[in-house]
Amino acid sequence: MQNLELIKPWEQLSELIGTDDPEQVISFLNRINPADTALAVSRLSAAQQSRLLTLLEPEDAAEVIEDISDTQAADLIEDLSPEHAAAILEELDSDHVADLLGELDEDDANAIIDQMAPEEAEEARQFLTYAPDTAGGLMLSEYLDFDGEQRVQDVLDDLQANREDYAYYDVQYVYVTDRDNRLQGVLRMRDLLFPSRTAKLNSLMISNPYKVSVDASLDDLRNFFEEHNLFGVPVVDGESRLLGIVLPEAVEEAHQKQSTQHYLGLSGIVGGEEFRSMPLLARSGRRLSWLSLNIVLNIIAASVIALYQDTLSAVIALAVFLPMVSDMSGCSGNQAVAVSMRELSLGLVRPTELLRVLGKEASLGVLNGLALGVLLGGVAYLWKGSPFLGLVVGGALAVNTVVAVSLGGAIPLLLKRAKLDPALVSSPLLTTVTDMCGFFFVLSFATLLLQKL
Amino acid sequence: MQNLELIKPWEQLSELIGTDDPEQVISFLNRINPADTALAVSRLSAAQQSRLLTLLEPEDAAEVIEDISDTQAADLIEDLSPEHAAAILEELDSDHVADLLGELDEDDANAIIDQMAPEEAEEARQFLTYAPDTAGGLMLSEYLDFDGEQRVQDVLDDLQANREDYAYYDVQYVYVTDRDNRLQGVLRMRDLLFPSRTAKLNSLMISNPYKVSVDASLDDLRNFFEEHNLFGVPVVDGESRLLGIVLPEAVEEAHQKQSTQHYLGLSGIVGGEEFRSMPLLARSGRRLSWLSLNIVLNIIAASVIALYQDTLSAVIALAVFLPMVSDMSGCSGNQAVAVSMRELSLGLVRPTELLRVLGKEASLGVLNGLALGVLLGGVAYLWKGSPFLGLVVGGALAVNTVVAVSLGGAIPLLLKRAKLDPALVSSPLLTTVTDMCGFFFVLSFATLLLQKL
Repeated sequence: MQNLELIKPWEQLSELIGTDDPEQVISFLNRINPADTALAVSRLSAAQQSRLLTLLEPEDAAEVIEDISDTQAADLIEDLSPEHAAAILEELDSDHVADLLGELDEDDANAIIDQMAPEEAEEARQFLTYAPDTAGGLMLSEYLDFDGEQRVQDVLDDLQANREDYAYYDVQYVYVTDRDNRLQGVLRMRDLLFPSRTAKLNSLMISNPYKVSVDASLDDLRNFFEEHNLFGVPVVDGESRLLGIVLPEAVEEAHQKQSTQHYLGLSGIVGGEEFRSMPLLARSGRRLSWLSLNIVLNIIAASVIALYQDTLSAVIALAVFLPMVSDMSGCSGNQAVAVSMRELSLGLVRPTELLRVLGKEASLGVLNGLALGVLLGGVAYLWKGSPFLGLVVGGALAVNTVVAVSLGGAIPLLLKRAKLDPALVSSPLLTTVTDMCGFFFVLSFATLLLQKL
Repeated sequence: MQNLELIKPWEQLSELIGTDDPEQVISFLNRINPADTALAVSRLSAAQQSRLLTLLEPEDAAEVIEDISDTQAADLIEDLSPEHAAAILEELDSDHVADLLGELDEDDANAIIDQMAPEEAEEARQFLTYAPDTAGGLMLSEYLDFDGEQRVQDVLDDLQANREDYAYYDVQYVYVTDRDNRLQGVLRMRDLLFPSRTAKLNSLMISNPYKVSVDASLDDLRNFFEEHNLFGVPVVDGESRLLGIVLPEAVEEAHQKQSTQHYLGLSGIVGGEEFRSMPLLARSGRRLSWLSLNIVLNIIAASVIALYQDTLSAVIALAVFLPMVSDMSGCSGNQAVAVSMRELSLGLVRPTELLRVLGKEASLGVLNGLALGVLLGGVAYLWKGSPFLGLVVGGALAVNTVVAVSLGGAIPLLLKRAKLDPALVSSPLLTTVTDMCGFFFVLSFATLLLQKL
């Protein structure tokens, strides 16, 4: 692998696309690593991206699709004719197809499915009915199943005959099903190494194998693979019929995707991924949708200040401390949010244990509130020489820290119970309330002590 | 698995520990899932936690350790005698041992290693020398290797003879090494199914197999497994000697751990995980260490306001808008930070491409700045009936939005180039600068237009 840090792979790729020689394009893409493929493809113009995918054979185009993120891939596929998109999707794993179709408009997705081979189209339609982060949404339909009456030699013959097809399978287990496709047992590949080749599978198989229901959640699946060190688990419907297999990598990947969405949501990137190669107006609009909610919340919070303009005119120094109290309380509250989110995701706290969290956070809030209050109050006192200003500012920060950490600890639990996404809503909700309280404490304490300030 | 939502597993566990009957304890822990084990163990007192681990046989205690997070596990192990800790660690995977020892003080870790069996102690010492997020730090020493002159039958005999030991191995591949332990080739388990049992391994093996260097980074490994759909990769030193294998799950897990640390760092939880079962003073102190940095930065930023007290006294309404401009700019800037972090982690932007990011962000900043400026300026105008107040407030927010998104987009690239952790430093750095600029723009624009306000 050559060092490409200094050269620009998209310029080479763009040039090669210009030559209209698919051989050269694919040999270039095979030479660079997937991250550089993703980078190079993202920097092409929309026209060049379409040209790239139509220039390549569907199986080569599928390799490009595998190297780039689902968001990028869905963008590219949208621009192709349904026939062409269908030809490429047929080369991908069944769960990858479902992921990509899930990112498209329903109409676009259906147009593509209509162009797929009947069997694959039916499968894709079926896969699209499963919720994304369930066993159904994560499973692969590529697995090996045999009848229990078949013999070891039958499996070996099948493996030999279908070598090429199976090269792309994650063949770790052989499943045994009955005539109605109900799961009977499982064999590990190495269980086939020792027995006689004429032995029947149902005499060798592990009966009642581990399995998960098609609607098992991502958390269920993570628990399963934490408990059982397996290379895959069969997915069954309510009548024990084998539908597919879920691999631990797929579970980890889905979990990783969820964490990324949490992180992006927390930072105000909503409605999916944003890359700087996307059109300016789309990027601007999506960011604004989040910002305009925030500006409304900010106006509500700041209206508290407007109520106390007389106090502010009398003690203009307070204006210096308002943004500080607001920001520091936000910081304290967000620490508590992060700890709650983490404990929730590890199962170390239950959404119902509000009192436990409030107790733990309030006591910590008192300590940290005192420390921060003394610090900020001290600064106020030193600056203006007024102990009462120090008392107002420090006292307000201390009280508001207790409010902020209690609220920050509680909000994720409450949102989880209300089935809302804590990552999206916690932070703006928290800062609005802590801002309002912070402004109120500073200004009302100051109004009380106005004679002394 | 029974539904434990309503009952409290830690109360049952605590009771069972009281009976001093290891059988009952382990059968209870086997009945509940790993997340509930982690929850139950975390709620025990320190004394009960030690009692639990000493009550159980080392192999059962190791199972408990596997169910809980590394941070929790390291806490528990610290409280045990080194002999006992060593006995438990000997039951764990080699990479898990390294992870746990890495979380302990060096002295504690060495005391435990001294009590381990010589061979395992040497291995643990060796593993501790590898950096955590490299192939060396992530590899397992549990793999199968044979001499190329050996035959298929030798492998099968070995697999049969060591059945029990290998049950815990992730046996997917058989590696072929020469006398100096240099990697020669690899065979997949299914490659052993078909050939004659007297065939020599070096006639069957895939020569020049994929391998990674012991110091390959986490990014290298992620790229590798994205490119190659394999169940593991051999790790070699500079002389091609086989040292261990890295599994894709280990790579995903390390990546997930890194994302978690990013998320926690971003939220101001620094110096490792925080759980509410930890002592209050430790939690308070760690959160304060981060908050006190922030309060200093806040004081610096707010000192800009102190310079403009005369303007503020003249137009007290400005005090209402200062926290809003500060907060909104922070929000805009953090969106840009998130996009840069994401593009960096996907390889869609290189740390050197500062101009590209600045260009993309500045143009978006102009659009969003205008939109937000008109909005906030409109509110100011409607509230006070002064078009000039609207101009000052809206103009300041517009200009500061451009500053915030440009800076937010650039900071992660700059920090990456400086080899600093963008997740930890981006946000406080960004908000300090955008606060200062925001206050400055509002108050200096107001000073310029003071006659009209």
